Amino acid sequence: MTLHTRKLLTIVSEAALESALIKQIELLGASGYTVSDVRGNGNHGMRDAAWPASSNIRIEVICEELVAEAIAHYVQEHYYENYAMVLFLSDVQVLRSVKF
Amino acid sequence: MTLHTRKLLTIVSEAALESALIKQIELLGASGYTVSDVRGNGNHGMRDAAWPASSNIRIEVICEELVAEAIAHYVQEHYYENYAMVLFLSDVQVLRSVKF
Amino acid sequence: MTLHTRKLLTIVSEAALESALIKQIELLGASGYTVSDVRGNGNHGMRDAAWPASSNIRIEVICEELVAEAIAHYVQEHYYENYAMVLFLSDVQVLRSVKF
Repeated sequence: MTLHTRKLLTIVSEAALESALIKQIELLGASGYTVSDVRGNGNHGMRDAAWPASSNIRIEVICEELVAEAIAHYVQEHYYENYAMVLFLSDVQVLRSVKF
Repeated sequence: MTLHTRKLLTIVSEAALESALIKQIELLGASGYTVSDVRGNGNHGMRDAAWPASSNIRIEVICEELVAEAIAHYVQEHYYENYAMVLFLSDVQVLRSVKF
Repeated sequence: MTLHTRKLLTIVSEAALESALIKQIELLGASGYTVSDVRGNGNHGMRDAAWPASSNIRIEVICEELVAEAIAHYVQEHYYENYAMVLFLSDVQVLRSVKF
């Protein structure tokens, strides 16, 4: 079984940004993504204080390192200063390199 | 505090496969798993286009490397060609080795 | 783009522990956390057998290694023997070190 190293990029943000972020993630070269509803608290205050518990999202993308860096750079430039948002990267091993 | 390295195996698939995958994961030696409902888009087209948003799942398993490889091999052989599915592995540190 | 290494600490536990764990996580120095509802099965038996499917939670924290170890140590001392609970750590890269 051959494993290939890819990047797992994770974004936790306000749910209102979901469609805009997904659109940009696909434009920047990702071939897929997973979204889940989360709740949380961060630097910008209790994020779910006045919202329903499902109003934050986690977006996960597995991709080549260059695509991950392009997405991270875009998010940093366009959202990171003004939105409650966390972005992080980690290394994962995938079965088929062609999928990502 | 002693930490032990284990594999975190993650599968994202159609919700309809949950019970079959869980059964096999346990047969192959995993001592536990976590399931969450997700939505997403991948190589096989927009997975939640015609389904409710909860119709995809993420299964996570922490286990020995050999168990992770056995599960990955099984999934690759039995599901990977015909289902919208992603499988990836990463390294994690756990507190108690006996649990996994 | 400068990336900084931090720890991603993940706890999967009974939902009833959410507020107590969150309170302690913040006391020990974490600047944020994310919670999601999950279901699962582990060493202490089928965790969702008699409960609704949403009665387990996953708490994720990105923090300095020392904070992660303090949280892990606290959880191990206070909860690990008597509750269905999993805790694991992994390395992630974040965009801005000041956030965590």
